[in-house]
Amino acid sequence: MNILVVFDHPRRDSLCGALLDAFLAGLAQAGHKAEIADLRAENFDPRLPPDDEPDWDDPRKVYSPVVLAEQQRILRNDAIAFIFPVWWWSLPATTKGWIDRVWNNGWAYGDARIPLRKGLLIAAAGSDQPTFVKRGYDRAIEIQLLTGIIDYCGIPEGELVMLYNLLGDDAARKAAIARAGELGRDYFGSA
Amino acid sequence: MNILVVFDHPRRDSLCGALLDAFLAGLAQAGHKAEIADLRAENFDPRLPPDDEPDWDDPRKVYSPVVLAEQQRILRNDAIAFIFPVWWWSLPATTKGWIDRVWNNGWAYGDARIPLRKGLLIAAAGSDQPTFVKRGYDRAIEIQLLTGIIDYCGIPEGELVMLYNLLGDDAARKAAIARAGELGRDYFGSA
Repeated sequence: MNILVVFDHPRRDSLCGALLDAFLAGLAQAGHKAEIADLRAENFDPRLPPDDEPDWDDPRKVYSPVVLAEQQRILRNDAIAFIFPVWWWSLPATTKGWIDRVWNNGWAYGDARIPLRKGLLIAAAGSDQPTFVKRGYDRAIEIQLLTGIIDYCGIPEGELVMLYNLLGDDAARKAAIARAGELGRDYFGSA
Repeated sequence: MNILVVFDHPRRDSLCGALLDAFLAGLAQAGHKAEIADLRAENFDPRLPPDDEPDWDDPRKVYSPVVLAEQQRILRNDAIAFIFPVWWWSLPATTKGWIDRVWNNGWAYGDARIPLRKGLLIAAAGSDQPTFVKRGYDRAIEIQLLTGIIDYCGIPEGELVMLYNLLGDDAARKAAIARAGELGRDYFGSA
C-alpha cells in the first residue's frame, strides 16, 4: 500500500520524530511505500482563509491551490496515518487546521467521502492512562477524532492508538517506539 | 469586570461576528469592559515553535515575546470569553493553537493556575443538537474544553454554551444572536 504519513511536531529530533522513524521502518519492512507530510517542516498554514470556507450552496466549490495540492497528496495514497503529540487532549493546532482546511465539504464529507482504505492515528500522550480515564479524556479524543473525522469521512477502517505516559517513564518511551514500529509493520496488512 | 473576548473566524462579517457584536453589546449594557482578541485579524500564528515548548525541568522557562504579550493580555482582565465556530466537533485551529502556545506550563498549569474568575465558551455549531448527541460529540467537546482547559487551569467558574443548528435554520440564527446578547449581559454578573 501507499501510505500518507502526516507528522506534526515543531522538531523532527523529538520523541514524536523517533516514533515516526520507527513507524516508517515498520512500513518499509512490510513492503509499504510511505509519503511523509511533515506539516511543520513544510510550513503548512492551519488558519483557514475565506477561500477555503465551505460554500454550503455549492458542493463543487474550488478551494485554494494549497488545499487542492493536499487533496492530491491524499488521493495518490491508499491509506493515511497521523503521528502527533496530544496537546490539550486533542490534536495540535497544525494538524487540526490541516483537517479544517483540507478535509472540506464536497470532498471529504457532504456528498463525497475520502476514498482511503484505512486511517491510523498514533497519539503521543505525556500523561498516563489513569489521568485520561479519570476525566473521560480518552473517550472524548476517540469520539472527536475516530468517530468524528475518520469514520465521518467514510474511511472504512480506523484506529486511534494512544501511547501514554511518555513524559513520565523511559520504559514507556521505549515501549512506545517499539509499538510504533509494530504498527507500521502490521496495521496495513501485507503490501 | 474586564473581559477578554477571544474571537476566531476568518471573517468579521460572519454569523460568528454577529454573535460577537451581540455579546459585546450585552457586556456594555451590564457595565463590563471588553478587550477583543480577534485572533485571525491580528494574524496570530497557532503553530507552536520550539521557543514555546514547555521545559518540564524548568517551570520558570521564559516563552516567546508573542506568548508573553498574550499572557499579559489575559492577566489584565478578570474573566475570559471565547466565541468560535465548531469545526470538527472542536475549536478551530487558531484558537486551539492560542491555547497550545499561550496556556503554557508554569503559567496556566503545572505549579501555576490562571487567575481568571470566569471562563465562558460560546460555540457556534452548524449541525443540530441530535446530531451532536447521537455520537457523543456534545459530551466530548465539553470534556475537552470545559473540563480539560477551563477547569484544568483553575478557573473556578466555567460554562460551554452550544448554539446549535446555525446552518439549518434562520430562526436558530436569530435565537443564537439573542442568546449571545443575554450571555454578555448576564453571565458575568453586575460590573
